[in-house]
Amino acid sequence: MQEFEAIQQFFKRPTTADLGIGDDAALVQVSAGHQLAISTDMSVADTHFFAELDAQDIGWKAMAVNVSDMAAMGALPKWATLAIAMPQLDPNWVQRFADGVFACAAQAGVQLIGGDTTRGPLNIAVTIMGELPIGQALRRDGAKVGDDIWLSGRLGQAALWLMDRQGVIALDAQARTYYARAMHRPQARWQLGLALRQIANSALDISDGLLADLTHLLEASNVGAVLDWRAIPKPNLHKNEIAEDTLQQAVLSGGDDYELCFTAPATQRARLSVLAAQLALPLTRIGQITAEMGLLVYDGNTRIHRPQKGYVHFA
Amino acid sequence: MQEFEAIQQFFKRPTTADLGIGDDAALVQVSAGHQLAISTDMSVADTHFFAELDAQDIGWKAMAVNVSDMAAMGALPKWATLAIAMPQLDPNWVQRFADGVFACAAQAGVQLIGGDTTRGPLNIAVTIMGELPIGQALRRDGAKVGDDIWLSGRLGQAALWLMDRQGVIALDAQARTYYARAMHRPQARWQLGLALRQIANSALDISDGLLADLTHLLEASNVGAVLDWRAIPKPNLHKNEIAEDTLQQAVLSGGDDYELCFTAPATQRARLSVLAAQLALPLTRIGQITAEMGLLVYDGNTRIHRPQKGYVHFA
Repeated sequence: MQEFEAIQQFFKRPTTADLGIGDDAALVQVSAGHQLAISTDMSVADTHFFAELDAQDIGWKAMAVNVSDMAAMGALPKWATLAIAMPQLDPNWVQRFADGVFACAAQAGVQLIGGDTTRGPLNIAVTIMGELPIGQALRRDGAKVGDDIWLSGRLGQAALWLMDRQGVIALDAQARTYYARAMHRPQARWQLGLALRQIANSALDISDGLLADLTHLLEASNVGAVLDWRAIPKPNLHKNEIAEDTLQQAVLSGGDDYELCFTAPATQRARLSVLAAQLALPLTRIGQITAEMGLLVYDGNTRIHRPQKGYVHFA
Repeated sequence: MQEFEAIQQFFKRPTTADLGIGDDAALVQVSAGHQLAISTDMSVADTHFFAELDAQDIGWKAMAVNVSDMAAMGALPKWATLAIAMPQLDPNWVQRFADGVFACAAQAGVQLIGGDTTRGPLNIAVTIMGELPIGQALRRDGAKVGDDIWLSGRLGQAALWLMDRQGVIALDAQARTYYARAMHRPQARWQLGLALRQIANSALDISDGLLADLTHLLEASNVGAVLDWRAIPKPNLHKNEIAEDTLQQAVLSGGDDYELCFTAPATQRARLSVLAAQLALPLTRIGQITAEMGLLVYDGNTRIHRPQKGYVHFA
């Protein structure tokens, strides 16, 4: 099987694009009065994921992390391209991989309109495009002093799976299965992102860890923040099974959660609690934006010292 | 040096995008009445290029092959994202690589608006976006029976460099230098692509070899073609230094030329010869579209049997 056949068989599905896979480029039209939002994420075997994972999970996540960037921007995800390098073209693997990609894409309304397949160490690069009304993007530089800091869902579940896998902790079978899902099948919060256009002053998604990512937002907005450790929704298991410092590491600095962290004026609290109910997604106030630069985390009156920076790609 | 700093230092340059590198997504606006053309090409070390090449050449070419896709579509190249995996973050290497990327981008008017840098075997994925007036794309499925088949520039120079490198032929030092430039610094024909919107019925760029690529166009258009071997512009050296079958291999099936092949009605001949003069770029009639399916190549009255298929990624 050659590249051209593989693309036809596994990746070419009907789209509503003006022109999809098969020519030198795809063609789409952006709605009048809208901006195009564009983001690219590359996933590399043994850097971002274990190559021996189920290909369906690898495909799902490669798409999900990109949808999450649209969510963090408040953009409606619409189109994606997929470039993949593989050591060999194993039709069974590619079929499962494509199933995962399309399952995630379908859930977010994304159409695959182009791509590239080639030989090489396993590497997946997805570029996603979405639309939003001009000027309504959820940027990182919009946080205002006094804003509440909000978080969707809960943090640290993916990190606990990874710690278990690395032998740092030992989960029971049930927890392992449960957290594996958090790690491999993240749910990009794009519906929340759309709803936040009218509500939030700033937003981003948590991919490298809450402290690391939030720091980027604070620096872009030229503000600081205080977080309340006790308020942050933690992994959904009995807390004293895991040492407190391990839990702090997972929740504050663990990556791969793909929840949204956003800031909004206190006047939006009621609206956000209605939204949480509508989306059946917990939205929790975890802190506040301050004028003083820096990011402080308190457990009651005690300051927690930053356990460790978020995930770094070049250690 | 970490990912965030590397992006700031090497890849973040001023753009006219509504929002460039640094947030969850970039934001741009597509001109009214225009389609967005999108293409992705992945370049992998030891599959598409030799890792020990000058990083500036690697960067140039990663961008150029994408600009070439815009050319082949008749789109004005505008924006690109760059995702790169590298075994380590060597600032000198990355600086030279970025210089190559930006040199090519600047020549084509492309702005880098997003990307991703990560650790992994060297792999570069560029997604390019361009604009064109709705309905004016140069598609592969538009060739008409009786169209002339045209080619820009000349074919086979990059292939001869590769053959020399692989020890199949032995070039003298001057030819090696000359052909190295064809291989490493391809000139994407985007100005030609723009001009062809009003002239050509179909077009593509030659990346995997004339016969392989033209076959895709013929199949998409449901037509056949006859090519005149003698008319095809060949590498710019004295022909009898290289065996005829080697030359055929390089010209008909060698990849990496990134010239445009396009079809146009005979009524456009005068216009195309004016255009060639304006662009200072040879445009040559090399054959004709036929109703009978298939692709035939003649040397005078003798049919040349297809030397070999074009480059295949999964052999």
